[in-house]
Amino acid sequence: MSSNLRIDGVRLASRLTALSRIGATPEGGCRRLALSDEDRQGRDWLVAELTALGLTVKIDAIGNIVGILKGREDGPAVIMGSHIDTVGTGGRFDGALGVVAGVEVLATLRDAGLTPKRDMAVIAFTNEEGARFHPDMLGSYVWAGGMSVAAAHAELDAEGAVLGAELKRIGYEGPEQPGFLPAHAYLELHIEQGPVLESEGGGLGAVTGIQAICWLELTLTGRPSHAGTTPMVYRKDPGLAGARLNIFAHELTKTIPGQLANCGVIRVQPANVNVVPETVVMTLDLRNPSDEALAQAEAAVRAYCAELSARDGIEIAIRDLARFPATPFTEALISAVEGSAAELGLPIRRMISGAGHDAQMMSRLCPTAMVFIPSIGGLSHNPAEFSTDEDIASGANVLLNAAWRVANA
Amino acid sequence: MSSNLRIDGVRLASRLTALSRIGATPEGGCRRLALSDEDRQGRDWLVAELTALGLTVKIDAIGNIVGILKGREDGPAVIMGSHIDTVGTGGRFDGALGVVAGVEVLATLRDAGLTPKRDMAVIAFTNEEGARFHPDMLGSYVWAGGMSVAAAHAELDAEGAVLGAELKRIGYEGPEQPGFLPAHAYLELHIEQGPVLESEGGGLGAVTGIQAICWLELTLTGRPSHAGTTPMVYRKDPGLAGARLNIFAHELTKTIPGQLANCGVIRVQPANVNVVPETVVMTLDLRNPSDEALAQAEAAVRAYCAELSARDGIEIAIRDLARFPATPFTEALISAVEGSAAELGLPIRRMISGAGHDAQMMSRLCPTAMVFIPSIGGLSHNPAEFSTDEDIASGANVLLNAAWRVANA
Repeated sequence: MSSNLRIDGVRLASRLTALSRIGATPEGGCRRLALSDEDRQGRDWLVAELTALGLTVKIDAIGNIVGILKGREDGPAVIMGSHIDTVGTGGRFDGALGVVAGVEVLATLRDAGLTPKRDMAVIAFTNEEGARFHPDMLGSYVWAGGMSVAAAHAELDAEGAVLGAELKRIGYEGPEQPGFLPAHAYLELHIEQGPVLESEGGGLGAVTGIQAICWLELTLTGRPSHAGTTPMVYRKDPGLAGARLNIFAHELTKTIPGQLANCGVIRVQPANVNVVPETVVMTLDLRNPSDEALAQAEAAVRAYCAELSARDGIEIAIRDLARFPATPFTEALISAVEGSAAELGLPIRRMISGAGHDAQMMSRLCPTAMVFIPSIGGLSHNPAEFSTDEDIASGANVLLNAAWRVANA
Repeated sequence: MSSNLRIDGVRLASRLTALSRIGATPEGGCRRLALSDEDRQGRDWLVAELTALGLTVKIDAIGNIVGILKGREDGPAVIMGSHIDTVGTGGRFDGALGVVAGVEVLATLRDAGLTPKRDMAVIAFTNEEGARFHPDMLGSYVWAGGMSVAAAHAELDAEGAVLGAELKRIGYEGPEQPGFLPAHAYLELHIEQGPVLESEGGGLGAVTGIQAICWLELTLTGRPSHAGTTPMVYRKDPGLAGARLNIFAHELTKTIPGQLANCGVIRVQPANVNVVPETVVMTLDLRNPSDEALAQAEAAVRAYCAELSARDGIEIAIRDLARFPATPFTEALISAVEGSAAELGLPIRRMISGAGHDAQMMSRLCPTAMVFIPSIGGLSHNPAEFSTDEDIASGANVLLNAAWRVANA
């Protein structure tokens, strides 16, 4: 029966367009920073959509918005979700797609007069991006019990605004306890935010998990000197050491399977043409689907820093900026996603998620999986972020099919 | 007769101390930016010293201060000099030493009742550092006819103050034409500003010339992407290309004799931990005593940039920031400096100057040489810049001996 069920692609696209008008930027992107006025307008729009569908709408104490379709039996719900906040220079699809597709799934079931065995729900989680308040994935983190409501409320943005006060100001400090709706499973549709699916010829992604992350900040201190009067042998150049480290980290990606490395920040002091630098602050973003492999990469970086220090006389201080273990998703649910795609005749491939998602937090509570659709040009966090209507409809149909399966199993 | 002549080391040190109190900083350094109130106070002090010695004091249209000891015969003068302006975080010796030592030489001759055959003079040149107005070595550049007075007067500082107006404001726009005093020879005593003399066991330097300079600004453009979702093979990372270029430039210093290289500025955009950089702006400071060798180094850098562009898909735009050919000093005058040191029993070694000096400009007009004294720790442009009283006295005695020789030859 579920195999004949399809979402309405036109209606889904028009819902996405409606949401994208809120906080629209001249470049064609979206700016709906968490708990801003634009976020409030987006939330108001979402609550109105959920209400119009006759769903039960609840708001929790951290502002997560929950729309519930009651099932025939009591018990934990099959939850779909994502977020509607964006980064400052965001696109129209990151997060919004997963929420709007969840709404469309429930609308499709409503239209078909279908009642699932289990409750089904869609959640828009607060502050996933971390662009305004730390940490990212805050709403789902609190929902999963990783952080207290009080601690989350106390978070400050860069201007010193308090999260709890902002939540109250926009009218989204709800009465429910985060996590109030027990979860049977969690499914999230999201754009890939990378180039893999498109460059492999399109098709969907059955996400097997989220890779482990290690962010390091390295402060390299040498000895500033005059670039004209100081012979090379007398120099202690942290910029040169940083260059070696950057290359070393990239070489690791060739020898450790699955390893990614990025040196995104390089700040040189004093930054004069004719002065050998005194300090360089640089960051390393290391990721790997395997915790063990990531630990191996990090150990290699630390050993190389020790070698640089000893050999070149550069002091290197290393600070942890972030560290998350790998989050493998649930095999049964990944298979359900694959099975749904097969039933719908849609090509799908297993892949790891390079970025963090609310699914990462929800996997603490229940079986979890994700569906990716291609990002054109691999672009994300960019006004030019784009996915085709066809891929959007395909992804939403897989979400519908898989959620319906799990809700009735 | 000249071999018995010695400067008064205590008096020289106390003159240096007096000048260093003007614009003294809490860290023990000096801040006398060109044409600032502190520079005016330093100039007033200098003019008073020269006047007290009974010298003829003249100021030219660019503010160069000239103190002249008349010789027995008419004709071009033996000129000593340097500058009394400093960088923002300057020390007590850079520039000041050469001016104060010139004063001390003339004072010593006065005390001894000696009149040279040729005129002898000391000049404090305006704005040598280039810390406030461009270009550096401006006063000597104008003196040597490289730049017109009108063009120099029109230069602006970072706040938009006009050089000519500032010169007038502090009362140092003089009536003389720059270059009014024909030059028979130019001798400049200066701190080394590098570590060579000290690490070779001390002693003086007979400077053979100023090395050639090439400053390049390189803008590397890649493609920004997500450091978690973009496989390594899809990245175009200008930070990595910049790291390779930094290392390449340093490797050149091992294969091209006399070659120096520094990458002092590295600016990465957008500078986020999890974003592969889009652009890197970096500078290369390349120096070599040989114009040919420097050209070889620059050509190698440009060829490597082309290789990086072709191989890694990084666009590299190269802009010239500065370019000066090598300035060889005059053999006869270098020998005179060496001979003076030998006569005084002072160890001296030939060496190249890594930095630019007023002598570079004066060498356009007349035979030129310089004397270096050790900089402790190689420090300069730093409040901790230091040279010992003993080395200062030795350097000034060589200056006295050499200037006296040349003035009577």
